Amino acid sequence: MTQYKYDVTMSCTGCSGAVTRVLSKLEGVDKFDVSLENQKVTVESSTLSETDILTAIQKTGKAAKVADK
Amino acid sequence: MTQYKYDVTMSCTGCSGAVTRVLSKLEGVDKFDVSLENQKVTVESSTLSETDILTAIQKTGKAAKVADK
Repeated sequence: MTQYKYDVTMSCTGCSGAVTRVLSKLEGVDKFDVSLENQKVTVESSTLSETDILTAIQKTGKAAKVADK
Repeated sequence: MTQYKYDVTMSCTGCSGAVTRVLSKLEGVDKFDVSLENQKVTVESSTLSETDILTAIQKTGKAAKVADK
C-alpha cells in the first residue's frame, strides 16, 4: 500500500464533493481523504501509480498536481 | 450540428470552471456554454451523442442529467 498526496484547487463543498465522488468510484483506491480546508487529497492504493491517480483527479477539471514532499 | 442541454449542479465558479475546462478539451465539441447562474450547460456538436457529452460532464464528479425539453 502506498500513500500519495496531491494539491488540488477546490473552492467549495461542491468542488470537494466532485473529487470525492470520482475517487469513490475509482477502482484500486483503498482509502482516500479530500480536505477542502487544506486543498489536499490523499489516496492510498496498492495497484494504482501516482500518475494514474493524478490523471483521474485532473479529469474532474480541477487544477491538480503531486504535492511537494 | 445538434444542441444539447444539461442540468448540472454547480455551486461556485470553481465548479463551473471545472466543467468549462473539461468541455474545452473534449474533442467534437463545436461550441458550449456553462451557466453557473442557471445550473445549465449547453453544448453544440456534430459528432458527439447526447450520452457521450453527458458521460464527459459526469466524469467531473458533478451531478448532471439531460435537461427537460
